[in-house]
Amino acid sequence: MPLITIEVADSVPVEKRLAYADAINAGLAEGLGMDVEDRFQVIHALPANHIIADPNYLGGERREVVFIRILMVRMYDNATKNRMYEAVARRLEAEGVRPDDVFIAVNENTLEDWYPGARGKRG
Amino acid sequence: MPLITIEVADSVPVEKRLAYADAINAGLAEGLGMDVEDRFQVIHALPANHIIADPNYLGGERREVVFIRILMVRMYDNATKNRMYEAVARRLEAEGVRPDDVFIAVNENTLEDWYPGARGKRG
Amino acid sequence: MPLITIEVADSVPVEKRLAYADAINAGLAEGLGMDVEDRFQVIHALPANHIIADPNYLGGERREVVFIRILMVRMYDNATKNRMYEAVARRLEAEGVRPDDVFIAVNENTLEDWYPGARGKRG
Repeated sequence: MPLITIEVADSVPVEKRLAYADAINAGLAEGLGMDVEDRFQVIHALPANHIIADPNYLGGERREVVFIRILMVRMYDNATKNRMYEAVARRLEAEGVRPDDVFIAVNENTLEDWYPGARGKRG
Repeated sequence: MPLITIEVADSVPVEKRLAYADAINAGLAEGLGMDVEDRFQVIHALPANHIIADPNYLGGERREVVFIRILMVRMYDNATKNRMYEAVARRLEAEGVRPDDVFIAVNENTLEDWYPGARGKRG
Repeated sequence: MPLITIEVADSVPVEKRLAYADAINAGLAEGLGMDVEDRFQVIHALPANHIIADPNYLGGERREVVFIRILMVRMYDNATKNRMYEAVARRLEAEGVRPDDVFIAVNENTLEDWYPGARGKRG
């Protein structure tokens, strides 16, 4: 039941944005061992100058960053998170996103913090 | 001092979006015992295909999901959270949102994590 | 490696929004002792009636709130956070934002929750 927020420049065409979302979902499924059907994502397309990232801080060379925020239950160890980051970046690269432009931030909560619809059961 | 993020399809008319925000506020007040004046909400209206939710995962049948993110102080037990989820879904239903289409995710912080304006005091 | 979300009315001109983002970055650098290059920000410009804040709750008088969400690593004590809030509000005031209209919410994670690009190293 992760909830994914994707913030991307609105110069990226709609079909490409949706392909990014597919790639991110596949990366989460691969990296976390998550069901591919466990898919809840929101895409925010914003003017390029409203997405601000230092080009070189911490290493690499950023040009057009895609911010990916992941809210998920606290249950994955660091090795699993690293595997997920790598899987997301690799799959986004296949869609044309430079790996330096992938920026992921995770935020964790608990199982009781989710309400997935009236008839949904918590994962 | 919860901060609420509402992500809704931009096909929902503006007045309806605002009615959803009212309903969500009333649901939080009812479910958490929160003051109705303790209201801080942001509505993001997005293209329908930018709000992605698996139609059946975990049960129910989703069609046009409204994502509701709640950032609030860690102080409510699970029974209280459940009462709030139910109150929000019930009040949104009165505005025409199917209960299966209500998706809530809570995220918690502490009282010291809020700055409610220069003359605001932390709740 | 904080990630900053700025939600502001779209009636604020683009150059002003960017000036707000500069001011917020400078306030974080001053208050937290953060590098100014450690800058990752997203600006969401929204219709004014989609940014909802009670005008007087908790004190002060809100008119046109700027919501600032800060996701950062859990490592700052309360005195440091307070210094940062004050620095952000002061620097925004220099750009014309009334201090009562500054609303900040912090959310914390850990160092392992960040992936700052393929060649980025965690802060």
